[in-house]
Amino acid sequence: MIRTIAITKDQQLHKDLPLEQLKEDGIMWFWVDFSEPTPSETQKLDTVFQFHPLAIEDCIHNLQRPKLDYYDDHTFFVMHALNAKTLEKEEVDLFNGDGYIVTYHKHVCPELEQVWNRLLRERSFNVWDEFHVLHQIFDKVVDNYFPIVYAIEDHINDIEDNTKELSMETLLEQLFDTRADLLTMRQTVHPMRDLMYRILSSHRLDGVRERKEYFSDIYDHLLKVSELIESNREMTQDIRDSYMSLNSHETNRTMQILTVISTIFMPLTFIVGVYGMNFSYMPELDERYAYFVVLLIMFVIAILMFLWFKRKGWFD
Amino acid sequence: MIRTIAITKDQQLHKDLPLEQLKEDGIMWFWVDFSEPTPSETQKLDTVFQFHPLAIEDCIHNLQRPKLDYYDDHTFFVMHALNAKTLEKEEVDLFNGDGYIVTYHKHVCPELEQVWNRLLRERSFNVWDEFHVLHQIFDKVVDNYFPIVYAIEDHINDIEDNTKELSMETLLEQLFDTRADLLTMRQTVHPMRDLMYRILSSHRLDGVRERKEYFSDIYDHLLKVSELIESNREMTQDIRDSYMSLNSHETNRTMQILTVISTIFMPLTFIVGVYGMNFSYMPELDERYAYFVVLLIMFVIAILMFLWFKRKGWFD
Amino acid sequence: MIRTIAITKDQQLHKDLPLEQLKEDGIMWFWVDFSEPTPSETQKLDTVFQFHPLAIEDCIHNLQRPKLDYYDDHTFFVMHALNAKTLEKEEVDLFNGDGYIVTYHKHVCPELEQVWNRLLRERSFNVWDEFHVLHQIFDKVVDNYFPIVYAIEDHINDIEDNTKELSMETLLEQLFDTRADLLTMRQTVHPMRDLMYRILSSHRLDGVRERKEYFSDIYDHLLKVSELIESNREMTQDIRDSYMSLNSHETNRTMQILTVISTIFMPLTFIVGVYGMNFSYMPELDERYAYFVVLLIMFVIAILMFLWFKRKGWFD
Amino acid sequence: MIRTIAITKDQQLHKDLPLEQLKEDGIMWFWVDFSEPTPSETQKLDTVFQFHPLAIEDCIHNLQRPKLDYYDDHTFFVMHALNAKTLEKEEVDLFNGDGYIVTYHKHVCPELEQVWNRLLRERSFNVWDEFHVLHQIFDKVVDNYFPIVYAIEDHINDIEDNTKELSMETLLEQLFDTRADLLTMRQTVHPMRDLMYRILSSHRLDGVRERKEYFSDIYDHLLKVSELIESNREMTQDIRDSYMSLNSHETNRTMQILTVISTIFMPLTFIVGVYGMNFSYMPELDERYAYFVVLLIMFVIAILMFLWFKRKGWFD
Amino acid sequence: MIRTIAITKDQQLHKDLPLEQLKEDGIMWFWVDFSEPTPSETQKLDTVFQFHPLAIEDCIHNLQRPKLDYYDDHTFFVMHALNAKTLEKEEVDLFNGDGYIVTYHKHVCPELEQVWNRLLRERSFNVWDEFHVLHQIFDKVVDNYFPIVYAIEDHINDIEDNTKELSMETLLEQLFDTRADLLTMRQTVHPMRDLMYRILSSHRLDGVRERKEYFSDIYDHLLKVSELIESNREMTQDIRDSYMSLNSHETNRTMQILTVISTIFMPLTFIVGVYGMNFSYMPELDERYAYFVVLLIMFVIAILMFLWFKRKGWFD
Ligand SMILES: [Mg+2]
Ligand SMILES: [Mg+2]
Ligand SMILES: [Mg+2]
Ligand SMILES: [Mg+2]
Ligand SMILES: [Mg+2]
Ligand SMILES: [Mg+2]
Ligand SMILES: [Mg+2]
Ligand SMILES: [Mg+2]
Ligand SMILES: [Mg+2]
Ligand SMILES: [Mg+2]
Ligand SMILES: [Mg+2]
Ligand SMILES: [Mg+2]
Ligand SMILES: [Mg+2]
Ligand SMILES: [Mg+2]
Ligand SMILES: [Mg+2]
Ligand SMILES: [Mg+2]
Ligand SMILES: [Mg+2]
Ligand SMILES: [Mg+2]
Ligand SMILES: [Mg+2]
Ligand SMILES: [Mg+2]
Ligand SMILES: [Mg+2]
Ligand SMILES: [Mg+2]
Ligand SMILES: [Mg+2]
Ligand SMILES: [Mg+2]
Ligand SMILES: [Mg+2]
Ligand SMILES: [Mg+2]
Ligand SMILES: [Mg+2]
Ligand SMILES: [Mg+2]
Ligand SMILES: [Mg+2]
Ligand SMILES: [Mg+2]
Ligand SMILES: [Mg+2]
Repeated sequence: MIRTIAITKDQQLHKDLPLEQLKEDGIMWFWVDFSEPTPSETQKLDTVFQFHPLAIEDCIHNLQRPKLDYYDDHTFFVMHALNAKTLEKEEVDLFNGDGYIVTYHKHVCPELEQVWNRLLRERSFNVWDEFHVLHQIFDKVVDNYFPIVYAIEDHINDIEDNTKELSMETLLEQLFDTRADLLTMRQTVHPMRDLMYRILSSHRLDGVRERKEYFSDIYDHLLKVSELIESNREMTQDIRDSYMSLNSHETNRTMQILTVISTIFMPLTFIVGVYGMNFSYMPELDERYAYFVVLLIMFVIAILMFLWFKRKGWFD
Repeated sequence: MIRTIAITKDQQLHKDLPLEQLKEDGIMWFWVDFSEPTPSETQKLDTVFQFHPLAIEDCIHNLQRPKLDYYDDHTFFVMHALNAKTLEKEEVDLFNGDGYIVTYHKHVCPELEQVWNRLLRERSFNVWDEFHVLHQIFDKVVDNYFPIVYAIEDHINDIEDNTKELSMETLLEQLFDTRADLLTMRQTVHPMRDLMYRILSSHRLDGVRERKEYFSDIYDHLLKVSELIESNREMTQDIRDSYMSLNSHETNRTMQILTVISTIFMPLTFIVGVYGMNFSYMPELDERYAYFVVLLIMFVIAILMFLWFKRKGWFD
Repeated sequence: MIRTIAITKDQQLHKDLPLEQLKEDGIMWFWVDFSEPTPSETQKLDTVFQFHPLAIEDCIHNLQRPKLDYYDDHTFFVMHALNAKTLEKEEVDLFNGDGYIVTYHKHVCPELEQVWNRLLRERSFNVWDEFHVLHQIFDKVVDNYFPIVYAIEDHINDIEDNTKELSMETLLEQLFDTRADLLTMRQTVHPMRDLMYRILSSHRLDGVRERKEYFSDIYDHLLKVSELIESNREMTQDIRDSYMSLNSHETNRTMQILTVISTIFMPLTFIVGVYGMNFSYMPELDERYAYFVVLLIMFVIAILMFLWFKRKGWFD
Repeated sequence: MIRTIAITKDQQLHKDLPLEQLKEDGIMWFWVDFSEPTPSETQKLDTVFQFHPLAIEDCIHNLQRPKLDYYDDHTFFVMHALNAKTLEKEEVDLFNGDGYIVTYHKHVCPELEQVWNRLLRERSFNVWDEFHVLHQIFDKVVDNYFPIVYAIEDHINDIEDNTKELSMETLLEQLFDTRADLLTMRQTVHPMRDLMYRILSSHRLDGVRERKEYFSDIYDHLLKVSELIESNREMTQDIRDSYMSLNSHETNRTMQILTVISTIFMPLTFIVGVYGMNFSYMPELDERYAYFVVLLIMFVIAILMFLWFKRKGWFD
Repeated sequence: MIRTIAITKDQQLHKDLPLEQLKEDGIMWFWVDFSEPTPSETQKLDTVFQFHPLAIEDCIHNLQRPKLDYYDDHTFFVMHALNAKTLEKEEVDLFNGDGYIVTYHKHVCPELEQVWNRLLRERSFNVWDEFHVLHQIFDKVVDNYFPIVYAIEDHINDIEDNTKELSMETLLEQLFDTRADLLTMRQTVHPMRDLMYRILSSHRLDGVRERKEYFSDIYDHLLKVSELIESNREMTQDIRDSYMSLNSHETNRTMQILTVISTIFMPLTFIVGVYGMNFSYMPELDERYAYFVVLLIMFVIAILMFLWFKRKGWFD
């Protein structure tokens, strides 16, 4: 679907003008949005707007990192929105030239939708121009990273406290998946941060320079998200290391119980085995109090073993 | 609550002047403090002072990193004080312009309170101006990081020496929590350090340049806190690794005891079991000294096993 | 094999001209390809083209990193293609001077073959010159890295989900080999990325400056591959750490089962052993209900042990 | 204690002149040393020399990192000597101005003592001035780091080879303490290295620029110490990891022995138990060769088990 | 031993001229080599050449990192050759001034020997001057790093495949030693790389600038060696981690076997023990088929246990 908004010099908003009328004299600036475009709509990037073939190729393919390319009469931005549910990155491409902005995205982009609708409802267009649209879309896309990273952070806290009383296998699985999610997010956020840094330090984007404080506000947010991602990865590592230590400690305790029991009862069981043998000549068997003497000896052995382990500190 | 201090050109301090009188001619500089402001008080940032909307937005919201923004006629600082008890960061926002400083904080800030009271008690105002207030607040906020990180350091030493004879589970839990605290502190201190670096290298803050040595003193302290945090994180990692090694060594020793006991007594118990069987034809049973021969054989087996383990070095 | 393509000033393509005719007046630019050259062919780098001895030495030897060397009248590039099957790096050397490009490679290079054939099929030579060939070869070589790293990524996902139900030994072996492959790829990709950065920021390569957007497109791809390699290495590390944790947890559970069984049955087996002894005077044996009393006592002991372990949480 | 050395313009050394006479005309340069000063002596930094209050504050307090501060007419250095026994850092503060150097240290500083005594014994004062003293003190302080780090290195080698045949617990404890010592040293050496870098690249220290080669000699030594510290930390980590691996291998071997013994003897002990039961009707018991048949069966079982474990490679 | 080579202006090579004749008019440039010098020979660095005392001190002492120092009329280089057998670094010091090079080394240096002999055999001295000697020595020293690091790499591959069927203890020991060797090599190669970077970017070494491509060839090799060292360290880490994982998995399997055996036979052994007791009143004993009933019950118990473990997946 291709849709357009045009603002005329006498401050009127026109919706859904055909592409051909957009370059007419009375138009101050316009915004064209390619939303889930068909291949034939995509071709208009070339036939109507004559954008650079490399930029169009980047629109069609998917492997791009967020980036900024300068061409002769337009600038090309690739940004990555994060789908809050799947954590997949969804590419939004922007062409920005004198008096226009063209956006291109293969999926519906809720952040862009918000800006589009706000512009439609707007009465006064003083602050609005193509760079304001650019700023608004970036701002919404980046603002949207926060609920995602906060959700991950909450999830990590749940894992740490194990509020849902999950089994250890489930917890470790969740921890692993959380770490993978943070890795995925980082692959989006770092290039976005680098992109915004380039935008801020660019000498060729007048519209950015005029509202530098607005774009550095976004950059600050990107720095913050980066830091949150790193901290959360360290946190998950800490949880895992901590669990490993605890587990290894617990294994040792379990081993000690087993060893104490075995060390006490194995010799005793051997002794009672001896007097269970059926040899015809075993003189002790016929002594009147031999049974009680043997019981006493075994009791003393058990006590001594117990004291030995106690001195080793195994019952602390 | 909004409160004010104004210093007049004839070196008088006026307390709690209404906001409207602050811009009068006789006033050399003034300080307005928004402490735990109501929403309607917050609005005065806009209506009375006309600060930039982005800065006001940053005051209202909480997700900011410490930062510095230049606007046309004022500079906006966000700093983070650390609450000594909860380790939570508490935002202090400062607006600094020609002849005034405005501070804004949603919680009572003890460091700022100290500066406010010292200024009230002051007799001579030679060294005091809006930048001196800025320096004093930064200095107090940063000085306050030290007792916190030293407390953590002491706690780590307690964990290492286990002076309170805590159980291993408790120690590991404390180690984990300490690491999380250090992570939290780092999230505050690193951006504060970066902020102070930007303040120091700024070309637009004359008041800072004039007292550069004072601000670099704060920067040195921030570097020091950063280093302490890193060292302490490495230290906790070391304690955990060291514990893991010791534990794994101990598990091995425990296993060896169990194995020695089992290896000696299992064969012996088997032998006595053999002669406890009730077959009607077991010729050995009727030999006169068979019992003693079997005892002797078992003794020799036990000795041989013992020597074998001794040679393996398991009794070192 | 040495083969040539020459484009004349009147836009004709000549194939397989002898090397001597290439410098003739009518030729606008030419491309000479040394594919799997014999030693005597290699000598022509010196005798026919007079390239710098250091560059020729680098062609002959193999230990080079991708690199860029400026000599008086030519530039020398070493790039590394990756063999998709063996993951081995295969060196492609390029000499670029005014009006010519010379390529040299000891193995057949499919990426270069593609460019050669496309040029042969070309009808119009507007965009083609020696720098376009340079760009095309670089582009194909780098594009070829992606299927390799994606194959590794898929393999890692297979390992994680263990879709093929392999034994743990096999999985760990595969994980190790994957990490080694990523290490090998990184040894190629990082120097290629550094090389492309140097090419982009060079002041001496006019032909690159004219088509900067094309070369930075390649640089972006190299950045992306680098990031993918790093993420995948972290992912494999995560899988291994996660497995270690799970395994250590499982060992602990196994130990607990063993300990519960031993702790319950060892004392009981001892007791029945006691009453299996053959002493002539064991008064309990003759009590009428002694057998049932002993059975009852053993049952109580077993229940108490069970409850004790239950309270320890070993049956959760 | 405050002590002084002054060199007059006619190349005479005067010892212990009162502070007031030091600024007299005939004096070319002087050195004042505050060694373990009393509070009233410390006050003279302010009353006699009028040093900057921030610098004096840094002398009195202890939390400083090594640093360099420029004030209007003097430069202030903080360096850290290492106490060879305790590894504690001991602060040495230096004020350097035109024609004088003032040193301040709360503990006796053997490195400074050396320089002081050498100057006292000197006959010719050509090379000596306030910057030469500065260099000499820095040089001695840094030279003193080497024996400390070499002692640690030797200690690590002792731990690795375990020449003293210590118990594993002791070795791990020593390894941990060594790592803590390296961490402590690093906290001193890194800031000293950064300080020396700043001194070398300073544009305001003429006396340093004149003898740049001497100061970069110290910088080289600091780089070297840093590298030694890092290598030694990696080495200790390697020793620990290596020990963990070996230990985990050994635990596995121990487990295998236990499992072999249990797996062979538990079934056999069960079988002999069966024929030790006292049922009145157990037909096998009365077969003439049943006993020998059972012994044979048990022998076969034991052999089979043994072969099974052998095939698993547990006896390699 | 001190030996000399001098090239005269008429392109003659003179061997072993006394040091005094070297500065004569007809000499174009000369090379003096101090090989395993005696203390009195070392003194000639000062008495004959008047080199800077700091440089001479660095020759005599051993703790230097590779480095470059500029003095008024000469440059001083310290490079480190690696002894292929012991992996020890052997210092080679070079003084380079207008028309001469002086080399100083306490051990015989085979790389330098090669250059010396090649120069002696040379017929034409066009390319040879003091900087060519400098380049040749650096080149040989660095080329010599490669066989060493390749030998380590091969050794790591042997360890990984365990081609020699060594015991695990030996393998882990070898892995540890290999890591230590790589650490040692890195301590040499990193400073050499930094040194070469400084040489390349120096503005004071005309002789280097003239043959920049030759020196950057060496720099490339140093980068390559650095990368190889890092990769190999990661590889050894990977082998160890991989071994740890496998081992921990194997321990778990061993534990499972032990637990299965114990869990099946301990209850059975208890049951047979019960019927081995000698109570006078045990009604079951006299039942005719009680023995077979008990055997059946025990068989059922064993089967149930087996199925339970099977369901837990312990026999996969
Ligand atoms: Mg592209
Ligand atoms: Mg796209
Ligand atoms: Mg935003
Ligand atoms: Mg928490
Ligand atoms: Mg998963
Ligand atoms: Mg915002
Ligand atoms: Mg904001
Ligand atoms: Mg706020
Ligand atoms: Mg302070
Ligand atoms: Mg300590
Ligand atoms: Mg907790
Ligand atoms: Mg202070
Ligand atoms: Mg080369
Ligand atoms: Mg080659
Ligand atoms: Mg490409
Ligand atoms: Mg996944
Ligand atoms: Mg393999
Ligand atoms: Mg492409
Ligand atoms: Mg201070
Ligand atoms: Mg001090
Ligand atoms: Mg020194
Ligand atoms: Mg060693
Ligand atoms: Mg200790
Ligand atoms: Mg020295
Ligand atoms: Mg680790
Ligand atoms: Mg030196
Ligand atoms: Mg030396
Ligand atoms: Mg070489
Ligand atoms: Mg391999
Ligand atoms: Mg060793
Ligand atoms: Mg070479």
